[in-house]
Amino acid sequence: MLNDGERLDELYRESMKIIQSRKVFAFSVDALLLADFTRLLKRDSHIIDLCSGNGIIPLLLSHRTALNIDAVELQERLVDMAKRSISLNGKGEQISIHQGDIIQIKEMFDHSSFDVITVNPPYFTNNQPVKSLDSHSAARHEIHIDLKGVVSAARYLIRNKGRLYMVHRAERSMEAIHVLMDGGFRIRRLQYVYNDENSGTAMFVLIEALFHSQAYVDVFQPFYIYNTNGSYSEAMLRVYYG
Amino acid sequence: MLNDGERLDELYRESMKIIQSRKVFAFSVDALLLADFTRLLKRDSHIIDLCSGNGIIPLLLSHRTALNIDAVELQERLVDMAKRSISLNGKGEQISIHQGDIIQIKEMFDHSSFDVITVNPPYFTNNQPVKSLDSHSAARHEIHIDLKGVVSAARYLIRNKGRLYMVHRAERSMEAIHVLMDGGFRIRRLQYVYNDENSGTAMFVLIEALFHSQAYVDVFQPFYIYNTNGSYSEAMLRVYYG
Repeated sequence: MLNDGERLDELYRESMKIIQSRKVFAFSVDALLLADFTRLLKRDSHIIDLCSGNGIIPLLLSHRTALNIDAVELQERLVDMAKRSISLNGKGEQISIHQGDIIQIKEMFDHSSFDVITVNPPYFTNNQPVKSLDSHSAARHEIHIDLKGVVSAARYLIRNKGRLYMVHRAERSMEAIHVLMDGGFRIRRLQYVYNDENSGTAMFVLIEALFHSQAYVDVFQPFYIYNTNGSYSEAMLRVYYG
Repeated sequence: MLNDGERLDELYRESMKIIQSRKVFAFSVDALLLADFTRLLKRDSHIIDLCSGNGIIPLLLSHRTALNIDAVELQERLVDMAKRSISLNGKGEQISIHQGDIIQIKEMFDHSSFDVITVNPPYFTNNQPVKSLDSHSAARHEIHIDLKGVVSAARYLIRNKGRLYMVHRAERSMEAIHVLMDGGFRIRRLQYVYNDENSGTAMFVLIEALFHSQAYVDVFQPFYIYNTNGSYSEAMLRVYYG
């Protein structure tokens, strides 16, 4: 079941197991926060996760909905890891992971066919130094696709009034907001994530964007991962353990 | 000194007096927060405040710098109030308040002539109901000028790498960010202001934007005006009393 360098991690709230590899791809707290931030409504019928990595987001969402979830990941090796995790959790019927490049999204899916899109895009621009072009770098850096490319794919896939959920580095939140708005999205909900109350600046941003809407934004209270004594915050414990 | 319906308010930190009128224009906490958020650097040489109202921002800044400060306000009556407050505080040499329409900014000031711009623009769009078109409404609603107009004037006035400070309603923060970025600004510092830790969503946003920069944003910890017991927060007391 596990290949060389892989390990099996467990998520408690969902009683879920997932195959990880520190060398290739290991999800981190941002993926858990994105899944937690994602609203699933009764009227939703199709969900897709872009830049899916080892499938952490669709796996987490599959515990909250019976709907079919599509997921797209470029790298064969991560697709393979995701497939094994999906099967390990008995979610093979619900989650379909597709190997493919979202630049060619039009060849993979129909226009306006999803109510909910989740995406944890590559965080770093190509101006930021890349030590080695391994598959982990590709998941973290905008080597294959940048923010505009991600939003362009989302724009093709999303229904009118559909919802896109994105997590990104807080330092790039302004660019994410700008690119989303240029793409016809309006930001509806926003939350910044800080390490703790003593952190000078935010680490991540969680964004809910609506397609073709005139909505105003609700900017929530910050999310703190840790208490100032270093223990997990209540909010974070809820994400981990329910 | 005071006209009908006006009152004299005192600001403690600056030992400053200002003429207000609830009917026409009274600054509120957002103006204090904007002035406090504004950084003045040693290299700065020219400062301008747009949509200046009764001159609260230039008056507050004049206690932190010896530089000359220009200010522009459209409404004669507010310009008159500002002039009397400026004189009352002995700041007639330092602050020049100009009656004028910032849509015609090019006729008033030279291009690229300011290092620092502060602005507390009208908060509400014209789609939001206006009860009566008095001068207070004009200061609060985008009757004469909208966000794009304000940013267009700022773009004309600001030097390369100059800094713009804006306070706006949090619910319109996405639009402010988008319009500023479209205008060639990059957001450098961002802070959301909440009533208190129990408020569901933010009330105001404080923005520092740099002109023609490639800066990433620092999103600071939230600013709480009140403690949850209803008393002023330490941060707010510092703004009021120093």
